[in-house]
Amino acid sequence: MYAEFLSKKLGDAGAEEGCMLSVETSGKSYKGVLMPHHEFSGRDIMILKVKSGYNIGIRIDPSAKVEVLSRPVERAKHEASEETREGLKTIVLIGTGGTIASYVDYRTGAVHPALSTSDMINAVPEIREIANLKAKVLFSIFSENMTVAHWQKLAEAIAEEIDAGADAVIVPHGTDTMGYTAAAVSFMLGEVPKPVVFVGAQRSSDRPSSDASSNLMAAARFCVDGNRAGVFVVMHDTSGDDSFAVHCGTRVRKMHTSRRDAFESINVKPVAHIGADGEIAFNGGGREVTAGRAEARSAMCTDVVLLQFYPGMDPELFRDVVLKSRGVVIAGSGLGHVNGNMVPLIREATEKGIVVVITSQCLNGRTNLNVYNTGRDMLNAGAITVWDMLPETAYAKLMWALANTASAKAAKAVMQTPLAGEMSDRRELL
Amino acid sequence: MYAEFLSKKLGDAGAEEGCMLSVETSGKSYKGVLMPHHEFSGRDIMILKVKSGYNIGIRIDPSAKVEVLSRPVERAKHEASEETREGLKTIVLIGTGGTIASYVDYRTGAVHPALSTSDMINAVPEIREIANLKAKVLFSIFSENMTVAHWQKLAEAIAEEIDAGADAVIVPHGTDTMGYTAAAVSFMLGEVPKPVVFVGAQRSSDRPSSDASSNLMAAARFCVDGNRAGVFVVMHDTSGDDSFAVHCGTRVRKMHTSRRDAFESINVKPVAHIGADGEIAFNGGGREVTAGRAEARSAMCTDVVLLQFYPGMDPELFRDVVLKSRGVVIAGSGLGHVNGNMVPLIREATEKGIVVVITSQCLNGRTNLNVYNTGRDMLNAGAITVWDMLPETAYAKLMWALANTASAKAAKAVMQTPLAGEMSDRRELL
Repeated sequence: MYAEFLSKKLGDAGAEEGCMLSVETSGKSYKGVLMPHHEFSGRDIMILKVKSGYNIGIRIDPSAKVEVLSRPVERAKHEASEETREGLKTIVLIGTGGTIASYVDYRTGAVHPALSTSDMINAVPEIREIANLKAKVLFSIFSENMTVAHWQKLAEAIAEEIDAGADAVIVPHGTDTMGYTAAAVSFMLGEVPKPVVFVGAQRSSDRPSSDASSNLMAAARFCVDGNRAGVFVVMHDTSGDDSFAVHCGTRVRKMHTSRRDAFESINVKPVAHIGADGEIAFNGGGREVTAGRAEARSAMCTDVVLLQFYPGMDPELFRDVVLKSRGVVIAGSGLGHVNGNMVPLIREATEKGIVVVITSQCLNGRTNLNVYNTGRDMLNAGAITVWDMLPETAYAKLMWALANTASAKAAKAVMQTPLAGEMSDRRELL
Repeated sequence: MYAEFLSKKLGDAGAEEGCMLSVETSGKSYKGVLMPHHEFSGRDIMILKVKSGYNIGIRIDPSAKVEVLSRPVERAKHEASEETREGLKTIVLIGTGGTIASYVDYRTGAVHPALSTSDMINAVPEIREIANLKAKVLFSIFSENMTVAHWQKLAEAIAEEIDAGADAVIVPHGTDTMGYTAAAVSFMLGEVPKPVVFVGAQRSSDRPSSDASSNLMAAARFCVDGNRAGVFVVMHDTSGDDSFAVHCGTRVRKMHTSRRDAFESINVKPVAHIGADGEIAFNGGGREVTAGRAEARSAMCTDVVLLQFYPGMDPELFRDVVLKSRGVVIAGSGLGHVNGNMVPLIREATEKGIVVVITSQCLNGRTNLNVYNTGRDMLNAGAITVWDMLPETAYAKLMWALANTASAKAAKAVMQTPLAGEMSDRRELL
């Protein structure tokens, strides 16, 4: 609740949530859309969504001046059209939430994370020109709150839609953990016969610079014209609106907090680039779409941890974390190293049957534990390495490998075998 | 020890360690320098250093053919010249070990990690044309084995050399954790009046593609002509030998396991680029060299941990790790988020006086916990954010801040104040 003086000031100015305001206080000027008052904010704090799209809190002086520059317009409401046109492929959108499914309701000024997939399609009417679309909302959460259970439900829902006749599935998803989900679903769906495309947005659809519609349209074009089976991520390729990248679901990482071209393929080129005209330029071969069935092998071992090695890391402090797990992925330094004082803990873990997988915090390049003594000591202690696999992908894969094999030995063999484009074939690396 | 048949085969061919061999076994051909037999290797395994510079183990068939292609040449021995020339600046090299200080002894074929700093200087005779050089070896370790105690001794040794008259200090260092050390030493040395330049090599000096000498020469040129005080990292800027980047010690990260241009400035441009001709092109202003004294405020709180958030992270499993610490740096997803189920642990930690600092695993961009509910909940639970600071830099800084302030509140204030170029001024970011 606002302080009385501030409540009165807003009332006098006729300022309601969603209004564009000009505010002068303590000698400074601000311009932005009035947002709902936050329960944790001070009573003299006003929240404005400023031009950058972010919210700032401003402490309002009793002598401040508040002026309404413009009032919100009612959000236009589209009806979802469910007509089906012959000759067009069918894409099913499975909504999970995230910024791509968010908008600021101009009436209240609040961010809604629950934009339905129908709403998303209606925001891109041209998408209906190229495909028949069906939409369902599976979850409505920001992706930092995705859990392994969500990954499992999602993979199962995707397989179900493909078996029910979908030519492709698009999964709008929050960008924060989209790389993790795409990797996990890649292993769960294995040789899926159709394209499964994750798509996100770095800016919500109410912002002029939103990438929600253009990413969705690019994803749909890839589904319709790409003839590529597998799990992919489609996002902006540049800061402009004219190029989109199709990333392999196991090779992609969010490498910027806010840019629209935040996603990068690591250690490989993107699978393809899509121009604004819909032209798809591939960077190599891949599996073609087939008529086969989809199967979700969604079992996951959740007793897996992901740790970044750092100088000063205390093996004693991490002892329980490691020894209570069934699998540990370490993002080591350089070629995959840890401090020599961590090696006894690795040995203790592997002797208990815990699988210890080494990746590199460099992200680019590949691990090699044969070059220096430390690496050889780690191998000798039972750690295995997965060359050019991303730490996050190794984490998702290890959960899957431990749940879908009968022994640590078999899980290790799975970790070192390329299954979904997640690593180069070792023989090619030597 | 080799199996008898293999021992005999090598003896018959006259093959000794350090010889270039051609080996045919099990239908495959190999070419490489014979390395010492590893105690953990199978008795029928031969280790060859192949063209890529890496060692591979080859299982030798009893019918294999081994031929000596060439024999090692004695390593030329230079005498360290200690003459001092007037008018030249004095640079002190403080050796710590790492690949830059490694070479393969062609007589034995073994990798020596203990190349002295004098040896390093002798490998780059032209360096004596531009500066008087003094060399000392402080440690001789690969950098994955650097500890906080090493950082402290190093900062103290650097300050001592500057106070004793050095115009600059160059620190040859292993590349694995060079970014961490450079960040830690940046905070310890504060407003150091001279250049302190970390330099590493991705390929040891025995390899034709070694970057050891060229990086060292570029570092020396920056020390002599740069007129810039502070802590820097100098490494290859491109895959060629014609451009070097000078990175701010708190903004640099090893982003590739093996490339010579593995180091990147994150969220800022490099401080400068140095051409092969020694020309320095700066990307902006900085502190000039002055006559002041150096001081090493080397106290560090070692009860700090660095954690990467990931979906499925179990707050219960990490409870002890967090609550036994005095400071926790979390590399959150996207703008700095964690799963909502981690928020109670953050609250419990901050209520105990533990400082919880949020960074982003995206590395590029900056945290902002004001945009989404999860972020606001994290702030409300007492977490603080450090905008565009790297997770590793935040880790080193938090150790320093906790040791050099009297309260968690003061440490938090230090974390949010730019001290060594590690973050943008918050006011510039809004």
